[in-house]
Amino acid sequence: MTIQRPYLLFLGDAHDALAAKTAIGVWYWRPEHCVGQLRLPGCVPRLAAPELDLAAAVAAGARTLLIGVANRGGKIGEAWVPTLVEALDRGLDIASGLHVRLSSVPEVAEAAKRNGRRLIEVREPGREFPVANARPRSGHRLLAVGTDCSVGKMYTTLALEREMRARGMQADFRATGQTGIMIAGEGVPVDAVVSDFIAGSVEELCPANDPDHWDLVEGQGSLFHPSFSGVSLGLLHGAAPDALVMCHEPTRTHLRGLPHWPVPELAECLELHLHCARLMNPKVRFVGMAVNTSALSEAEGQALLASLQDTHGLPCVDPVRTGVEPIVDVLQS
Amino acid sequence: MTIQRPYLLFLGDAHDALAAKTAIGVWYWRPEHCVGQLRLPGCVPRLAAPELDLAAAVAAGARTLLIGVANRGGKIGEAWVPTLVEALDRGLDIASGLHVRLSSVPEVAEAAKRNGRRLIEVREPGREFPVANARPRSGHRLLAVGTDCSVGKMYTTLALEREMRARGMQADFRATGQTGIMIAGEGVPVDAVVSDFIAGSVEELCPANDPDHWDLVEGQGSLFHPSFSGVSLGLLHGAAPDALVMCHEPTRTHLRGLPHWPVPELAECLELHLHCARLMNPKVRFVGMAVNTSALSEAEGQALLASLQDTHGLPCVDPVRTGVEPIVDVLQS
Repeated sequence: MTIQRPYLLFLGDAHDALAAKTAIGVWYWRPEHCVGQLRLPGCVPRLAAPELDLAAAVAAGARTLLIGVANRGGKIGEAWVPTLVEALDRGLDIASGLHVRLSSVPEVAEAAKRNGRRLIEVREPGREFPVANARPRSGHRLLAVGTDCSVGKMYTTLALEREMRARGMQADFRATGQTGIMIAGEGVPVDAVVSDFIAGSVEELCPANDPDHWDLVEGQGSLFHPSFSGVSLGLLHGAAPDALVMCHEPTRTHLRGLPHWPVPELAECLELHLHCARLMNPKVRFVGMAVNTSALSEAEGQALLASLQDTHGLPCVDPVRTGVEPIVDVLQS
Repeated sequence: MTIQRPYLLFLGDAHDALAAKTAIGVWYWRPEHCVGQLRLPGCVPRLAAPELDLAAAVAAGARTLLIGVANRGGKIGEAWVPTLVEALDRGLDIASGLHVRLSSVPEVAEAAKRNGRRLIEVREPGREFPVANARPRSGHRLLAVGTDCSVGKMYTTLALEREMRARGMQADFRATGQTGIMIAGEGVPVDAVVSDFIAGSVEELCPANDPDHWDLVEGQGSLFHPSFSGVSLGLLHGAAPDALVMCHEPTRTHLRGLPHWPVPELAECLELHLHCARLMNPKVRFVGMAVNTSALSEAEGQALLASLQDTHGLPCVDPVRTGVEPIVDVLQS
């Protein structure tokens, strides 16, 4: 699944920044892949990107209209449809991570067919994968794992990619979720892969590479989240990482989606991940911890990071507040 | 997915017992659900069941023609097609676990439509499942796990069901693979479920039940098989077992399908399964080990079982040679 670049970011009639988080993420991590933004009347968030209509975006070279807005329920807004149809008529593909499929809107499906354009549904794997072969492969791989879902695994791997590239290292973010796929322009939505092929799909996502190259694989779920642990273990074994980063949100009172379920202890979480990862690579190690301290004051956040670093003997960072340099230092050491 | 009973077992033109292993399994474990067998010219294996043509089977009450034979490549034999069409014309459903789908054979698809009969593809989940809710539920559950794929998990759970029912205990085999589903007449092919819903599908397979009731859940793969570990962990967390049985084949030199991969150490395998299962149920325990000693002599097999029992402190049985009584004794203790 590859999304043609560059993109025109579609913000629709988003009411707030949360609704436009995909567009914000793509613009933040890949501004060089975006010609600009398209906002409909009533749209509140605004990126620091050129505002372009469809004609201007096509003139600027846009190949894909990327839907960077999420409605409640993952629906396609009725107000968007004329713009989506016009985009297809002007020769753009459309990429969407919404729950409701582009192809389910008759006008959009017809316009795509009429123009021979692609409707890229990033929630769908789009193809079949092999069973994992578990063969050793060259190149290094780092996997972001977590104590829970939505604790910053994607942000952490993207921040590592940016820092490593700035240091001249070979590093590629490998996306496993819909927002990550929109940012990377490719990837595998592992939670939508048939379960027999989870690890196989991840082997294809991060294949053999140069000996000095790092694939930075976006994790999903947690070995300790009973709803999604199968995805997490398949991803861990398919990625066969050399390095792990533990991602954590310290103020969470229960696992996401499970109000009755405690967040696991960090020490136990580190240990089980290592235990399972050693099946693929006896030398695997944790190279750091990425903690989302945004709910804490600056001082509280710093104190927590220092305390965790002391307890676990790993560089502990907040990728947003402190950056990830100490983790990259470990990778280079 | 429920297959209507009773069945007519279709052996096709099977050349040997291995090709007819599904029919043999259904007849062995559920003779009371079978009116008889249908063999085509050239069929070698023969069950101790009545040989019936389609008219006689319908007269005997058959509801479903169950394809109990597997060709190389999971194909549907050309010689079978007239029989399949006639079965549908006579009002039977057809159930198949073959890789090639019944619905892909035009004559069969048309006959099903014409007669309003069902083509039940047991490799397909057939419906959507929820994300697991991980709520505690009443009733007991036992899960068969393993050091590898194809080490007797299905046979072990079926043998436990038979023994427990013979003792008057409430027990139901819960099928998670295609042969198991053919035997049980229902189940979930977990390896075909989309990965986000593995655990959720297993929660539905073995829901809350009477406090004295045991669900005996067929395991799949192994936490130590890197191709399928995600399925195994999702199944473990979805089943939330009270009791585990470790299944093992002691003469295997490598994991199935991975000639370069060693079989895990039993002690490590027991420990990791317990570790992961405790997330759902801190009281979970191993209640025995089921070892396939068929490649050993009777004396060697007995010696191995005694040795394993001594090392691991668990009842160690060969379900075929010794039966599973010692494991049921533990469940009753």
